[in-house]
Amino acid sequence: MLETIFNHRSIRKYKSTPIDEKILSQILEAGIRASTTGNMQVYSIVVTKDKEIKKKLWEIHFKQDMVLQAPVILTFCADFNRFNKWCELRNAAPGYDNFLSFFTASIDALLVAQNVALAAESEGLGICYLGTATYMADKIIEILNLPKQVVPVTALVVGYPDENIKLVDRLPLKGIVHNETYKDYSDEEINKIYQEKESLDETAELIKINKTENLAQIFANIRYTKKDNVYFSKQFLKVIDEQGFMNNE
Amino acid sequence: MLETIFNHRSIRKYKSTPIDEKILSQILEAGIRASTTGNMQVYSIVVTKDKEIKKKLWEIHFKQDMVLQAPVILTFCADFNRFNKWCELRNAAPGYDNFLSFFTASIDALLVAQNVALAAESEGLGICYLGTATYMADKIIEILNLPKQVVPVTALVVGYPDENIKLVDRLPLKGIVHNETYKDYSDEEINKIYQEKESLDETAELIKINKTENLAQIFANIRYTKKDNVYFSKQFLKVIDEQGFMNNE
Repeated sequence: MLETIFNHRSIRKYKSTPIDEKILSQILEAGIRASTTGNMQVYSIVVTKDKEIKKKLWEIHFKQDMVLQAPVILTFCADFNRFNKWCELRNAAPGYDNFLSFFTASIDALLVAQNVALAAESEGLGICYLGTATYMADKIIEILNLPKQVVPVTALVVGYPDENIKLVDRLPLKGIVHNETYKDYSDEEINKIYQEKESLDETAELIKINKTENLAQIFANIRYTKKDNVYFSKQFLKVIDEQGFMNNE
Repeated sequence: MLETIFNHRSIRKYKSTPIDEKILSQILEAGIRASTTGNMQVYSIVVTKDKEIKKKLWEIHFKQDMVLQAPVILTFCADFNRFNKWCELRNAAPGYDNFLSFFTASIDALLVAQNVALAAESEGLGICYLGTATYMADKIIEILNLPKQVVPVTALVVGYPDENIKLVDRLPLKGIVHNETYKDYSDEEINKIYQEKESLDETAELIKINKTENLAQIFANIRYTKKDNVYFSKQFLKVIDEQGFMNNE
């Protein structure tokens, strides 16, 4: 268990080897053992293997090649549609058209996704999360035909790795963990926390390629800019609303 | 790995046995190996062991005894505070005061939480998620002294189990997985998906105790009601706004 966790790498190059149905089933079964709120299981997983549909997903996931290469794309959705239908058939009154329910269902879906990721890795498969799932939620809804009360919150590409990559750096644990209560960071502490990351050879290389003064500028000014974040915030909130999760009165 | 996942049970009774510091560190280190958006690691973990602080947390986590019993409470927070401070020290312009950034940081925090949960279970510890973390986010912010751009999204109690419980039911996998695209459910399919759950002895017992016609009514009319969901939706959206994640223009 711990070995699998400590060996995690995000894989971005895949062999075309398909995933055996039994292995895929087992991974998904492992997924649904995750805790969910009240054991309501308010999520769904869409398994996409079809080349034409994968091509459409590739288009909207910023044309990342791994989406075409990997044999399976899993889209994890916050889903109250199934639960609502059950309630309606049982003369119960579902009250899940609000933001809290969306967030609750998102938590469910994300814990399941991480179980699936680890189960896949323990079977020798590679995975990579697609953060683009929230940016492009409206398009995913169209492609995967998601009904009201279903919103994609993350996606995984899964397949056999076609690259060997080394472990990626992480900030030191003490920069992330707070004892008892949150202790806000001094400038000196921030410098210390980011010191190792900033002194990596890869970082020097990235700064050179991106022609910035430092790594933070690559994130804030190039990769994850205010302009994009604001744009995708509006889009995602619109999706949450349109899918019927913003009736908060 | 798979064994740990398939053996997961939420534990609600704990021994007072403390968790060895080395084991706790290893579990948290396992946590931070999880994938995060752009490897930005925009989350924090607050580790609470102090009895007085735990008592305050117990109060707001609906006075669930396990919060007092278990030696450790972990609160997982979406956190752009550290990242912003770093950007500001490096003359980079952080644009993370919006909803997308909140959701991105929430994904980070939740994947880490599930890694921690599984790592803990692989070490013989028990865990239980506290869904109340989002309901009572405003109070947690006070108790744990969370600054702007930090929002609690889930919490875990961790400790040595003081109960033996059997595996809890899950809906059949085919009721949750959709092939290629989402296929909406017919009434017949809904009946089939919930059939096993509805025929459990525990379900009959719950219906008797709650004096309802069926299980769906327990969820919709008693446990997770529209009234509560609407109330907590407003509260949680207010928290997201007050913590500086709703500047979407």
